[in-house]
Amino acid sequence: MSYKPWDGRFAEKTDALVEAFTSSIDVDKHLYKYDIEGSIAHSKMMAKQNIISNEDAKSIEEGLLKIKEEIETGSFEYSDSLEDIHMHIESRLVDHAGDSAKKLHTGRSRNDQVALDVRLYLRNETNIIIDQLKSFLDVIVNFSKKHIDIPVAGYTHLQRAQPVLLSHHMMAYFEMFKRDMERFKDSLKRVNVMPLGSAALAGTTYNIDRELTAELLNFPEVSKNSMDSVSDRDFIMEFNSIASICMVHFSRISEELIIWSSSEFNFIEISDAFTTGSSIMPQKKNPDVAEIVRGKTGRVFGNLMTILTLMKSLPLAYNRDMQEDKTPLFDTVDTLKACIAVYKGMLPNIKVNKENMYNSTTVGFINATDMADYLVTKGMPFREAHSVVGKTVSFALSKNKEIHELTVKELKEFTELADEKLFKFLTTESMIERRISSGGTATSNVKTAIDEAESYLKANS
Amino acid sequence: MSYKPWDGRFAEKTDALVEAFTSSIDVDKHLYKYDIEGSIAHSKMMAKQNIISNEDAKSIEEGLLKIKEEIETGSFEYSDSLEDIHMHIESRLVDHAGDSAKKLHTGRSRNDQVALDVRLYLRNETNIIIDQLKSFLDVIVNFSKKHIDIPVAGYTHLQRAQPVLLSHHMMAYFEMFKRDMERFKDSLKRVNVMPLGSAALAGTTYNIDRELTAELLNFPEVSKNSMDSVSDRDFIMEFNSIASICMVHFSRISEELIIWSSSEFNFIEISDAFTTGSSIMPQKKNPDVAEIVRGKTGRVFGNLMTILTLMKSLPLAYNRDMQEDKTPLFDTVDTLKACIAVYKGMLPNIKVNKENMYNSTTVGFINATDMADYLVTKGMPFREAHSVVGKTVSFALSKNKEIHELTVKELKEFTELADEKLFKFLTTESMIERRISSGGTATSNVKTAIDEAESYLKANS
Amino acid sequence: MSYKPWDGRFAEKTDALVEAFTSSIDVDKHLYKYDIEGSIAHSKMMAKQNIISNEDAKSIEEGLLKIKEEIETGSFEYSDSLEDIHMHIESRLVDHAGDSAKKLHTGRSRNDQVALDVRLYLRNETNIIIDQLKSFLDVIVNFSKKHIDIPVAGYTHLQRAQPVLLSHHMMAYFEMFKRDMERFKDSLKRVNVMPLGSAALAGTTYNIDRELTAELLNFPEVSKNSMDSVSDRDFIMEFNSIASICMVHFSRISEELIIWSSSEFNFIEISDAFTTGSSIMPQKKNPDVAEIVRGKTGRVFGNLMTILTLMKSLPLAYNRDMQEDKTPLFDTVDTLKACIAVYKGMLPNIKVNKENMYNSTTVGFINATDMADYLVTKGMPFREAHSVVGKTVSFALSKNKEIHELTVKELKEFTELADEKLFKFLTTESMIERRISSGGTATSNVKTAIDEAESYLKANS
Amino acid sequence: MSYKPWDGRFAEKTDALVEAFTSSIDVDKHLYKYDIEGSIAHSKMMAKQNIISNEDAKSIEEGLLKIKEEIETGSFEYSDSLEDIHMHIESRLVDHAGDSAKKLHTGRSRNDQVALDVRLYLRNETNIIIDQLKSFLDVIVNFSKKHIDIPVAGYTHLQRAQPVLLSHHMMAYFEMFKRDMERFKDSLKRVNVMPLGSAALAGTTYNIDRELTAELLNFPEVSKNSMDSVSDRDFIMEFNSIASICMVHFSRISEELIIWSSSEFNFIEISDAFTTGSSIMPQKKNPDVAEIVRGKTGRVFGNLMTILTLMKSLPLAYNRDMQEDKTPLFDTVDTLKACIAVYKGMLPNIKVNKENMYNSTTVGFINATDMADYLVTKGMPFREAHSVVGKTVSFALSKNKEIHELTVKELKEFTELADEKLFKFLTTESMIERRISSGGTATSNVKTAIDEAESYLKANS
Repeated sequence: MSYKPWDGRFAEKTDALVEAFTSSIDVDKHLYKYDIEGSIAHSKMMAKQNIISNEDAKSIEEGLLKIKEEIETGSFEYSDSLEDIHMHIESRLVDHAGDSAKKLHTGRSRNDQVALDVRLYLRNETNIIIDQLKSFLDVIVNFSKKHIDIPVAGYTHLQRAQPVLLSHHMMAYFEMFKRDMERFKDSLKRVNVMPLGSAALAGTTYNIDRELTAELLNFPEVSKNSMDSVSDRDFIMEFNSIASICMVHFSRISEELIIWSSSEFNFIEISDAFTTGSSIMPQKKNPDVAEIVRGKTGRVFGNLMTILTLMKSLPLAYNRDMQEDKTPLFDTVDTLKACIAVYKGMLPNIKVNKENMYNSTTVGFINATDMADYLVTKGMPFREAHSVVGKTVSFALSKNKEIHELTVKELKEFTELADEKLFKFLTTESMIERRISSGGTATSNVKTAIDEAESYLKANS
Repeated sequence: MSYKPWDGRFAEKTDALVEAFTSSIDVDKHLYKYDIEGSIAHSKMMAKQNIISNEDAKSIEEGLLKIKEEIETGSFEYSDSLEDIHMHIESRLVDHAGDSAKKLHTGRSRNDQVALDVRLYLRNETNIIIDQLKSFLDVIVNFSKKHIDIPVAGYTHLQRAQPVLLSHHMMAYFEMFKRDMERFKDSLKRVNVMPLGSAALAGTTYNIDRELTAELLNFPEVSKNSMDSVSDRDFIMEFNSIASICMVHFSRISEELIIWSSSEFNFIEISDAFTTGSSIMPQKKNPDVAEIVRGKTGRVFGNLMTILTLMKSLPLAYNRDMQEDKTPLFDTVDTLKACIAVYKGMLPNIKVNKENMYNSTTVGFINATDMADYLVTKGMPFREAHSVVGKTVSFALSKNKEIHELTVKELKEFTELADEKLFKFLTTESMIERRISSGGTATSNVKTAIDEAESYLKANS
Repeated sequence: MSYKPWDGRFAEKTDALVEAFTSSIDVDKHLYKYDIEGSIAHSKMMAKQNIISNEDAKSIEEGLLKIKEEIETGSFEYSDSLEDIHMHIESRLVDHAGDSAKKLHTGRSRNDQVALDVRLYLRNETNIIIDQLKSFLDVIVNFSKKHIDIPVAGYTHLQRAQPVLLSHHMMAYFEMFKRDMERFKDSLKRVNVMPLGSAALAGTTYNIDRELTAELLNFPEVSKNSMDSVSDRDFIMEFNSIASICMVHFSRISEELIIWSSSEFNFIEISDAFTTGSSIMPQKKNPDVAEIVRGKTGRVFGNLMTILTLMKSLPLAYNRDMQEDKTPLFDTVDTLKACIAVYKGMLPNIKVNKENMYNSTTVGFINATDMADYLVTKGMPFREAHSVVGKTVSFALSKNKEIHELTVKELKEFTELADEKLFKFLTTESMIERRISSGGTATSNVKTAIDEAESYLKANS
Repeated sequence: MSYKPWDGRFAEKTDALVEAFTSSIDVDKHLYKYDIEGSIAHSKMMAKQNIISNEDAKSIEEGLLKIKEEIETGSFEYSDSLEDIHMHIESRLVDHAGDSAKKLHTGRSRNDQVALDVRLYLRNETNIIIDQLKSFLDVIVNFSKKHIDIPVAGYTHLQRAQPVLLSHHMMAYFEMFKRDMERFKDSLKRVNVMPLGSAALAGTTYNIDRELTAELLNFPEVSKNSMDSVSDRDFIMEFNSIASICMVHFSRISEELIIWSSSEFNFIEISDAFTTGSSIMPQKKNPDVAEIVRGKTGRVFGNLMTILTLMKSLPLAYNRDMQEDKTPLFDTVDTLKACIAVYKGMLPNIKVNKENMYNSTTVGFINATDMADYLVTKGMPFREAHSVVGKTVSFALSKNKEIHELTVKELKEFTELADEKLFKFLTTESMIERRISSGGTATSNVKTAIDEAESYLKANS
């Protein structure tokens, strides 16, 4: 039978279509353990404050733990007519704890209850994601250490620009995902605030002790304004924003792995375990995981837009629109966790084709900047050197040669400063090792960056 | 045992995490009946073209129909290792049709197969939505007919502006949802294009007859370019766009119902069957359905952003990112259908508080424009009349009176043109009935609009 | 001096900050010519209906034309205190036409006036865009004709899949941009509706003839509901949606041009006139135009989100939020026009590297499907053939050979059906020419597609 | 004459259309002072490191300051052919500083230069916004202090729920905007990182001292990876995310002010200086500022979507797409600053209609919860009390009375526990003052909240 906690004043029964439409049980049932955790703390606090008896609190706790077990063993029954997980649990609690159960909802409302549940959920999930990111950062560092000395073309505009170390390239992603992790950490300060006891919107007349509830649930802080508490969804918007930025990073590395896996680049081979084939083309080995991750970026952006749109222009305090916050939140959490997990598995399973990477640094006038730099060391202003080298490149192109394949005599047509020593500047190794400015690609720099990364990870574990 | 249609060249097994990550079966199983319908047509065409035997075609059809039954009776088994609905069905078909089954995938690929399935699905769902909208338009017309003669303040900036008929107000929504319906109809032209036979991306070497397949599946047109066919998701983006605009309309009417349900406006009462209460406040009767619809607007916008983002910058032809197109599409379809359905039920169950509506037209200087218009009829330029009335309003405000509560003597302080006849202009009825410009709120106009609406619906049924 | 058309009842002056904040003149001044065109029609109609005299109408028209000239010659003065372009023009008209000017605003309001102006603007711009797209389609067809017979690898997952003709590849974009054009055409039906005379929201009491106004302004249809007319922004949302889909297409072709311009692919060279260089790397020739177009995709998506968000949940009828509709609309119009224009110029200036394209079709097991198809012609079920070829590919890979470089003897290890004739199947030319299914890449098909495209363009010019 | 820093290798001139299309000068000219500031620091550092002479550094600094003056006095000339602000300044510097000017671009690239400029810009603007928010928080606190004791209905679902203090209601916004401020502060950590010296993407071969540059420009930190440095736009995405959440808050308070300004609510009157009127309806006084702010929410969401979309899937390192980051960033900065500014001015200029607010707390069964709470204090379980009160409300409704207008005898029909004392519970004052749970609406709580807010603002000033 349906248990509506609010039907005292209603003459007509809820339309069945409406029951299904307004029900959120399919989505919010994932909150069950947080709902139970929060209710136990609330009930303990009330007993301590003599709002309910110790016996009531005990029956409530036992009943809730029984329900938890029922849910986890699959024997719990769901129904649209009970609207949401909170009502499901409370309704079932009456079976287990009788009249004690009916006292549980004293001094609180569904509005602050759901706010608490979602905060408990998101605190937990954010911590999991932070841990995942940390171990993914570790995977990136290890990849970089393993491939510390492999030169590859660095690209801008997808054009070969200057040679870099593959390890340097990968450590750029270390920086990105590290920032993501720090953003998630910053956001936790705003998740970690205890809203229960704000009741419907105005606080409660019962002599509750919100600091005690907070202590029992391990919250460092209690929310300061009851109307804000029940209608604040900032932490969901903030989480989705940070996740979106993190997915931008995943979309970028995925794009690179896909391009690098092409026959034309042929820089890497992703292991069979992390690729799939084609139903019609027997030769295909597709970088599907990277593609799906790239595609899921859209999903997370979409979830951000969903939550922003739904919160726009809602007057205080709680409005039912807010029920729609959970689908995009849960989907973003699940998506992000899955993406980090597959990447942690895939990255170490990538085979690097060193030779092709190296070759990318010797063809395509990638040493043009270094020729210009050489002329500058001989006294030519940079802008002039740039122009001289531009003309040299045009000439070399017309001869179908690289700069380092021209003769000194040919080079002297463009500048008298050209000489034999120039050629030493133009090797891949020299170009990499001379970029010793802090943050640059010289091997020693990259090693320093890796050391600092390892210290950072140790300090944050 | 896992059946991978592509593992001939693979040495290693797919990682379990990857199997779960790349699997789309949870989502695309909703396509089963379209997949079966398409496969039967493909097989019939191949038999006609002597690519397979009639016996093969018969076994295939029988096997597929058996699978359909298995799925619909719940006896079909799903597994992540079979990736998607297409593989599930094909794998199971081998059990039912043996070697014949293995010939089904001749002359096609998963790329064009999934394009076909989604088009069949969306054609069907779009037609359902068009029908729903049509009957919702009917509900709006009936609501307007029922309340043809109820004056209510028309608002701009949520300020009382000029009196209108409630029926005129509601017929504005007729216009909006009618445009939505027409946009959906226009979009069908681009959904209704048959892609099968484009194969992986280049067409096929088999002597297939795509026009025949199209005929069997009731498509008026065959896609013209195989590379476009397998990577075109325009119709999904277009559907989501139109749905987003439609949700804007639902968010607007919902906002109005919510405001009208407030104690302050108290213009309407939504029946118990379409409202819910509060777990803590026994008096509450909340317009939850309208709120949830308004909230779901965010979801549909989010889905649009998801599909646009995921398609951005994908090179030709098929990329695995595209697998992510189905979640936002299915969710938008389901959301939109649910919103129309609850609105169809709710609108006729709204009780209109005529008196409050009428009162809103007599207080708040809502007849100011008409006083200005009166002065214009007496020869004053409009801009001057506007200014005179503005000053009159200020004076009346200071006396705590409405314009029609001032004396002619008081009015003459502002303009000599004021006289007794003016007051007849300032009644609610006069203000409404004199707005006879085409599309204006005079009763006769609204009746005409309703007549035209009924003719339109009849012509389009 | 400031001219506020509404300050009769106001005691205090508008705050300067507020004047700047609420002013839209910087944006909506681009509407000046449509505002003048609409006002002339409105004034002519009023004269015809004897609402104003012919002399008034003449003064108004002359005054407005004078203002048009002032604006176009730069002598017109703007001021934030006049709020918007409508007030600027009306205020200035008083200087030119005296009391006649004050009669112009009879029977209309700024609400329907701005709706008219934006519709006139968007009708014009949409037609321009349709023309631009048409000539861009022509450019694509000419490009395809010019490069009718160049084989290149067709890609899925950015992996070489099957050979196609470059012309076939480009004709996929013909299909996409053709759909865009048709969507724009469909949308015009909903732009091309005349709203003037809806007045503030309820229609007007003046004896106006809206059909005549429509005729003067070349509108086939008059809006049917005054409340809808002043608050309908569907056509802006629809335009932005279609533009977003069109930008998806531009982002896709841009991504391809960028990848094809890389040293690794080296399929094309964009002419100097359509590329730029680097301030530091003298060798660089960057596909900037394609990159910026790809980047501008974000801008158009953003504009769509802006307009959808701002319309969400607005009650009827006009709300000032709607003023914010013009920035995203104008920006999308300008962005889209610029993108089409540069692409029209750039595409014919692309040099195709035939040899590299051809080579992409001979390496990378791109003929694997055709070997499978061959085995099917000899009686093997497709799924079995796929698996056999998969194993053959693995073997060839281990020998560092392509399939067509294996001996018949080696092939027979995998299937007895392999023989000498197989090799003829595996040439680029054979693979392309055998894909004769409608819409496939065989040269004759592409020629047909080009013919049809030319007929289509002729019929639509 | 055009000055292209990169045209050495180009044979053809840039197409004029392309020059206009790729030029960003209209947008990035706003960065001029940051560009000059950064260049002066770079040049000083180079002199210190003996890369250029002290004389060169002096000429460069003098030349740059002269350019700054030219720009600020309007004598500087702009041209599309110079692409961006960096080239404009560098080109002009040659006029002022001759050969010294040509040395300025040593050891850096436009890629790291623009990253520096945008970081300097955003650091400055974020600090301004933080200051604005701080003084807006002050405005909110003062508003709450001024209206400390005004009861008003607290709403959920826009239905009267329980009485609260207006000051309590407004302090909810204090919490929201305070969180925004803290998010902006957190984000500064990630803006405040010095990228210069990362050069094109790989670092530079010159002996630069990036720590010195950082010190001169007051950056606490130097970026750690050159490839990340030139392609990191996280800080722009993060800023836009935080701004979007902040705009959600502005949209909510705007919605409330608009609803409260309606004739039906009539809770507030916004002063003439912050409202505008209607061109056709002389009585209108519209809450335009609140409406435009609400509308601008869409703009900021759109900008967020723009920047997320454009960054999606970009491979390392710099790509020209990134040029499109500035339009949405600048627009969001300008929009947010304008919204805070008008709100700071408007809020103190709102007149509160105390009587109407008070009346909202006495009608509409707003004391139903408190009746239930009373029954609970007498021993009834909450859920039962809720049901009893629900039935009482139904009965009262049928009598057209409020609960406190029923007799004890009538009440006893529903529960024997009803008695005279109940009525004391049901007054507005009692309901407010008994909500003493921390964060609840009792006056003492709100005073505490205000005290804490003032301490917070003092500590953060």
